[in-house]
Amino acid sequence: MLTVSEAAALLRDFDNVLILTHIRPDGDTVGCAAALCAGLRALGKTAYLLPNPGLTDTTRPYFAPYAAPPDFTPDKVVSTDIATLALLPENARAYGDRVDLAMDHHSSFERFGRANILRAEAAACGELLYDILRELGPVTPEIALPLYVAVSTDTGCFAYSNTTAETHRTAAALMETGIDYRAVNKVFFRTKTRKRMQLEGAMLSGCEFHDRGRVAVLSVPLSLMERFQATESDAEELSALGGQIQGVDCAVTMRELRPDVWKLSLRTGDRVNATRACGILGGGGHAAAAGCTVEAPWAEAKRRILDAVAQVAPDFSAD
Amino acid sequence: MLTVSEAAALLRDFDNVLILTHIRPDGDTVGCAAALCAGLRALGKTAYLLPNPGLTDTTRPYFAPYAAPPDFTPDKVVSTDIATLALLPENARAYGDRVDLAMDHHSSFERFGRANILRAEAAACGELLYDILRELGPVTPEIALPLYVAVSTDTGCFAYSNTTAETHRTAAALMETGIDYRAVNKVFFRTKTRKRMQLEGAMLSGCEFHDRGRVAVLSVPLSLMERFQATESDAEELSALGGQIQGVDCAVTMRELRPDVWKLSLRTGDRVNATRACGILGGGGHAAAAGCTVEAPWAEAKRRILDAVAQVAPDFSAD
Repeated sequence: MLTVSEAAALLRDFDNVLILTHIRPDGDTVGCAAALCAGLRALGKTAYLLPNPGLTDTTRPYFAPYAAPPDFTPDKVVSTDIATLALLPENARAYGDRVDLAMDHHSSFERFGRANILRAEAAACGELLYDILRELGPVTPEIALPLYVAVSTDTGCFAYSNTTAETHRTAAALMETGIDYRAVNKVFFRTKTRKRMQLEGAMLSGCEFHDRGRVAVLSVPLSLMERFQATESDAEELSALGGQIQGVDCAVTMRELRPDVWKLSLRTGDRVNATRACGILGGGGHAAAAGCTVEAPWAEAKRRILDAVAQVAPDFSAD
Repeated sequence: MLTVSEAAALLRDFDNVLILTHIRPDGDTVGCAAALCAGLRALGKTAYLLPNPGLTDTTRPYFAPYAAPPDFTPDKVVSTDIATLALLPENARAYGDRVDLAMDHHSSFERFGRANILRAEAAACGELLYDILRELGPVTPEIALPLYVAVSTDTGCFAYSNTTAETHRTAAALMETGIDYRAVNKVFFRTKTRKRMQLEGAMLSGCEFHDRGRVAVLSVPLSLMERFQATESDAEELSALGGQIQGVDCAVTMRELRPDVWKLSLRTGDRVNATRACGILGGGGHAAAAGCTVEAPWAEAKRRILDAVAQVAPDFSAD
């Protein structure tokens, strides 16, 4: 495992770099990749991001300026915020066995790169990238803005339990470069489309409670998305919603990706280890936020995740 | 106007101190007052908070340990986060002409104290109190916890446009004292009662748009509060809701305090100066967040605030 200085030294030797982001890309993977690309270009290098089909209206603007042309042939491949090769988008699979440097912050990181760096205590991979990038050169606004997106989105704007004093210090340093962080906050944390409002309302109306009110199950079937003609952008981070209900310490969000294919996202408090519960069903993540995919009808998928939660949650009440 | 050192020196000379908070107390006024009280007591002084009838379930725990007994007779009176004497609760009016030190961060601060200190560029009065308190002595967890409440609540957990790099640095320093900031974030920013969820749903359903969708008017009549048996705690910070709707840069929240008495709260973007609009109706606040009270039936109160917005908003369209 590399140190920050070693990772920076490695990157300094790289050129013609392709940067990979994870499937269903979030602000952290996109922000880290964009910032790294900007940092490498500032050193005179050629660098691009492999196009990711899962971008949303909010993440696309940070990604687009760096998207690789179809004919780009990289000499080096780097990944940001990718815990395991299973999280590579389809079009990135060909690069799975030739990742020269993998940078991550998930405790479940599988060290699939030829070189690897992990900061498991970081709330966002962006905190690690900030330290690496400032060893490479001055942190310009072009670097700082996507890093602010990375750090702020992975912490729910500094509200999630993964947030540390170091997260705030990183944010302060990024903000002082003069970036328009207010616009980022407005778009990511203080803007909801009317469709989003409708989706949330419907999810909350159909919310089910288990385990004496401590486990909430919220569902986003394809039919709901269709009813409101909601897009992927309208449905981002819906998994944070259930955990906000008073008394709930394990929020399960069931999102139907394709007919009878459910992406289950857990957001949990101290009592329930989300990674362990999702691990039972072949998934992973962090202790307080994890996910897995289950192919089954809704009722069966729900039964499986509740069984998994029951196995890891002390004092679980089957009602 | 005092400097931080002068304010600290003054406080060092004070004893038997009564600390005042503002009407409809929020996390900033309560957090600052509690932190100051803890800091003064750490210096061996007698200090209390004047009981405030407007406390909510979330703010009360920070206030209660310091509430003054009925027979407390102060030698010195201090106020935190109070911009004008009009914001004193009823039971504090008697102290209006004898505030020895008034500490605030509102640009509309009226310097009503015998001594005054203002930091208008601070997002929260808590940022100013942090600097004063660390001149007085070590910032213990007893001081840091309410200050974290102050700083985080006045910035909507670091998401509002008043947030600066300094806000984050203050938060980082407070968090490093070992306080349970995660519990604060959970309670203030990631917990909603079911009643709160219902209130929000009803407000959004009844939302009116003006000025080509840029001005949203959301109403909380007494009848709505009664319908859900919602308490003051369920209704805190409802004024942040309307500004989250895409395309809205001026959110007006109309809260019926008593029959036909409306507290109007504005949350605005760059185009609309909230203080100027509310000033027309006798209120005040910050450029992006201000309020006023109008005694009139709903439709008339709405007409008055829309007229005021139209006067200060460039390019306002009367539809």
